[in-house]
Amino acid sequence: MMKFYKTILFTITFILFYQISKAQDSLMLRKIYDESLVNGQCYENLRYLCKQIGPRLSGSANAQKSVDWGKKLMDSYGFDKVFLQECMVPHWVRGQKEIGKIINGKTEINVNICALGMSPGTPVNGIKAKIIEVRSLAELANVGESQIKGKIVFFNRPFDQKFIETGRAYGAAGDQRFAGPAEAAKYGAVGVIVRSLSSTLDDYPHTGTTVFPDGAKKIPAAAISTKAANQLSNLLKLKKLPQIEFYFKQNCQLLPDVKSYNVVGEITGSEKPDEFITVGGHLDSWDLAEGAHDDGTGVVQGLEVLRIYKSLGLKPKHSIRAVMFMNEENGGRGGDKYAELAAVKKENHIAAIESDGGGFTPRGFTFQDVSKEGMIKINSDWKELFVPYFSERLTNGGSGSDIEPLSVFKNAVLIGFKADSQRYFDIHHTPNDVFENVNKRELELGAASMASLVYLIDNYGISH
Amino acid sequence: MMKFYKTILFTITFILFYQISKAQDSLMLRKIYDESLVNGQCYENLRYLCKQIGPRLSGSANAQKSVDWGKKLMDSYGFDKVFLQECMVPHWVRGQKEIGKIINGKTEINVNICALGMSPGTPVNGIKAKIIEVRSLAELANVGESQIKGKIVFFNRPFDQKFIETGRAYGAAGDQRFAGPAEAAKYGAVGVIVRSLSSTLDDYPHTGTTVFPDGAKKIPAAAISTKAANQLSNLLKLKKLPQIEFYFKQNCQLLPDVKSYNVVGEITGSEKPDEFITVGGHLDSWDLAEGAHDDGTGVVQGLEVLRIYKSLGLKPKHSIRAVMFMNEENGGRGGDKYAELAAVKKENHIAAIESDGGGFTPRGFTFQDVSKEGMIKINSDWKELFVPYFSERLTNGGSGSDIEPLSVFKNAVLIGFKADSQRYFDIHHTPNDVFENVNKRELELGAASMASLVYLIDNYGISH
Repeated sequence: MMKFYKTILFTITFILFYQISKAQDSLMLRKIYDESLVNGQCYENLRYLCKQIGPRLSGSANAQKSVDWGKKLMDSYGFDKVFLQECMVPHWVRGQKEIGKIINGKTEINVNICALGMSPGTPVNGIKAKIIEVRSLAELANVGESQIKGKIVFFNRPFDQKFIETGRAYGAAGDQRFAGPAEAAKYGAVGVIVRSLSSTLDDYPHTGTTVFPDGAKKIPAAAISTKAANQLSNLLKLKKLPQIEFYFKQNCQLLPDVKSYNVVGEITGSEKPDEFITVGGHLDSWDLAEGAHDDGTGVVQGLEVLRIYKSLGLKPKHSIRAVMFMNEENGGRGGDKYAELAAVKKENHIAAIESDGGGFTPRGFTFQDVSKEGMIKINSDWKELFVPYFSERLTNGGSGSDIEPLSVFKNAVLIGFKADSQRYFDIHHTPNDVFENVNKRELELGAASMASLVYLIDNYGISH
Repeated sequence: MMKFYKTILFTITFILFYQISKAQDSLMLRKIYDESLVNGQCYENLRYLCKQIGPRLSGSANAQKSVDWGKKLMDSYGFDKVFLQECMVPHWVRGQKEIGKIINGKTEINVNICALGMSPGTPVNGIKAKIIEVRSLAELANVGESQIKGKIVFFNRPFDQKFIETGRAYGAAGDQRFAGPAEAAKYGAVGVIVRSLSSTLDDYPHTGTTVFPDGAKKIPAAAISTKAANQLSNLLKLKKLPQIEFYFKQNCQLLPDVKSYNVVGEITGSEKPDEFITVGGHLDSWDLAEGAHDDGTGVVQGLEVLRIYKSLGLKPKHSIRAVMFMNEENGGRGGDKYAELAAVKKENHIAAIESDGGGFTPRGFTFQDVSKEGMIKINSDWKELFVPYFSERLTNGGSGSDIEPLSVFKNAVLIGFKADSQRYFDIHHTPNDVFENVNKRELELGAASMASLVYLIDNYGISH
C-alpha cells in the first residue's frame, strides 16, 4: 500500500513538474520572440551584408570582405569565442556578360542567358550549333550520340507546379542543371542550355552550379530565362524552321583555389562546454545576386540566435555556435572543413540547424533521419510551444548542405529551418535576390524560431 | 447475439465508409489544388483588375469599370446566374495631393501625409496650429479640453510588434484612426494627424477610413508616414522647441451618394438550390492603391472557386456564389445590401468565406462564433486534409466585414480565409499595394484552399 502511494506521489510530482516546465518554456519562447521582434538586429545586419558588400562568390574580394564583416560583427557582440576556419575554395569567375542568340537564318533573337557556375567558357568567338531539345537525362540517353553530336543540348523540363513545396519542384528539375552538361558532353554535345530552375515565367536567367565529375569532359553550359526557353521551344516545334540554331558566348573560367574562411562565434556551455549545437547558413552567394535570401538571411539569423542569448542573459548548458559557412554554392568546402575540424578536435556535436531556404515566414523545421518514434516525441514535447508562432510543422526531412557533413557524428541531429517556400525560386540565383525582397518581421520570426529550438534542445536534448 | 453481429457489421461499415470518403476527399482536394496551380486564372484576372483598371474607390468611374469587368468576366465563365445588386455608396474624393509641414519657426519640413477617407478638407489655405501628441483615446480624455482646444491632435501609438499576427497589431492601434478624429473634435481640436497603421517604418502615409458618427463634429484628419511621425515626435520631445507647429492642407470632400453594385455569380445547387455558400472579397479599393492585396486577391480568389468547380465538372449540392462586394473600405454598403436582399428573398445561407487579408501564402481559416465542440469537430473532420497544403490552421476567429451582415442568418457559419499576415500592413492602403507584390503561387494556393473548404462544406455541412 505504501508503494502504491509512493507511485501516486511520484506520478503527481512528475505531472506537476512537466506542466511547470512546459509553462516556463512557453514563457521563455515568448521572451525570445519578443526580443527578436522588438530589438532584433538581423534585418540591419542583412542590409549591410547586401548593400555594403553585395555579391560574394567564393574566392572573390567581396567574399573576403564578408568574412571580415562577419568576424568583426561577432567580436562586437562579445561572444565567448570568435574565430575563423581556413579552407581552400574554388575560384570561378564569370567574366564579361554572356551573349545568347536564337538564330533563324538571318534573323537573330537576343535572349537572356548566364553561364552556370563551374562551367568553362566558350571559344572567344562563341559557339554556334543546331539545337536538340530534351526534357530529361533519360530522354538524352534515349536520343543518343548520333543526334546529339556537334549540337547544343537544350534541357527544357519546367518546374512541376503541382508540388506544394517549391523545393521539391527544384529537386525534381534540378538534375538538368547539376548533371545535364556533363551527361550531354558524353554524347558529343558542344554546349548546353538549361531552362532556368524557377517557379515563375520571366526574363531572368538563374545561375547555379553544374558538376563535372573528376576527369569528365567539360563543355560550356548556361541557364536561359524561362520566357526565352519557351520562345526557343516554340520555334523548335515549327517544322518549317529546321535551320534554327543557337549561339552563345561566355568567357567564364576556373582559376586556382583561393584561401577563405568559415566565421564561427560561440557561447561556451556552462555544463557541457564540449558538446555543440550549431546554427547558421552560408556566407557566400552567387556573383549575380546580393544573396539576400540565399543565404544572407541564414547567416544573420544564426548570428541573431547568439545575440538573443546574450541579450536575454541566457547561459546555455551546451556550447552554441553560429557559423557563417563559406562556399556552399559551388563546392561546399566550408561545410566539409567544419565537420573535418570537429572530428580532428574530437568535438561532440549533438545538433545543428541550417537556414538556407530563404528568410520567409517560418513554417517549422525538418529533422533529418529521425525515427518515427523520435518524430512523435519531438512533436508531443514541442509542437504546441510553436503553435502561437505559426512555426509548428516539425517533420522528417533534409537539413542543409553546409551541416550535412556533420552526419559523421552519429548522435548529431541535423535540422533544416523551414521558411515558407512559395517565393524562393522566383528570385533564387538571380539579380532579384535583393534585400528589398526580405520582410523584416518574417526574418525576425525565423531567427526567433531557431533560437527557440536551440533553447529546447539545449535544455532537453534531442535524439534520433 | 444477432444484434451484436449487426452492431459489429454496422460499425465496420461505418468505419469503412468513413475511410473511403476521407480518401475520396483527399483525392478531390488534390484535384482542386492541381487545377488552381496548373490552370489557375486568378493571377491574370488580378493583373487586369490592377493594371487595366487600378484604384477603384466607391463612387469613382473606376469602381464602375470594375463592376463592368466583373460582370463580363463572370458571364464569360458561363456560371448559372450572373447578376448585379444595386446599392447606393458614399462618394468621397481626395482632390489635390495633400500638403503637410512641420513648422519650427522659419524652418519648414515637408512630410508625407494623406487625408483619411471620409475626412472633410481643410480651409483653402490649410490649417496651422500647435500640436499635442497623445498615444491613445484614454490619454486624449486625460489631457482634456484645456490643452487640446485649438490644437492639432497627433495620435502616435505605433504597432505593437510583439503580436505575431499583424492583424492584431492593426486592431490594437486602429482606434486612433477610426475614432480618434471624432473624439478629438469633442475636445475642440482643429485637426488630427494619425500615425500610419503600418508594421514598417517608411515614408508612405497609409490612408483608410475614419468615422464621424451621425451629428458628430467633423474636423480634417490625415495619416502621416511612420518615419515622419517619429520625426515629429522627436522634435516635440525637445523642450527647447515649444514653438513647433504643424500645417496641413487637403481638399477632400464627401459628395452625394452614387449608385453602385455588388457583382454576383452563382452555380446553382443540384440538391439544395435554395441554400447558399458564399465566397468572395471586396471590389472597391482605396484611391491611392491598385488594391492588389486589398482586396483584388479576394475578388479573384472567390471567382476562381467557381471557375474550379466548372473546370472540374463538379456539381455542388448547394448553390455556390462568388460575390464581389462593393464599398467595404468606406461604408460597407455592399455587404449590408447582400444580407438585406438575402433576407428579403428568404434565402437560406449556410456558410460564407471572405478573403480580405491579402493573397499571401495560406495558413488556414478562422470560424466566427463556432462553439468549442464545433471547432473540435471541424478539426477532427478536416484538418488532416489541409495539412499537405500548409493550410491546416482551423481556429475560432473573425470572418470578414462584407459577410458579417449575414450573421442575421443564425445557421450561417461565417469564415475568414487566413493568409499569412506578416507583409500585409507594410503596403496596406498605400501606393505599394500593387500587383507586383502578389505572388502567383501564393494567390493560387489561397483560391484552392477556399475551393476545398467550399467542397467540404457543400458535402458535409457545417454548424456552430
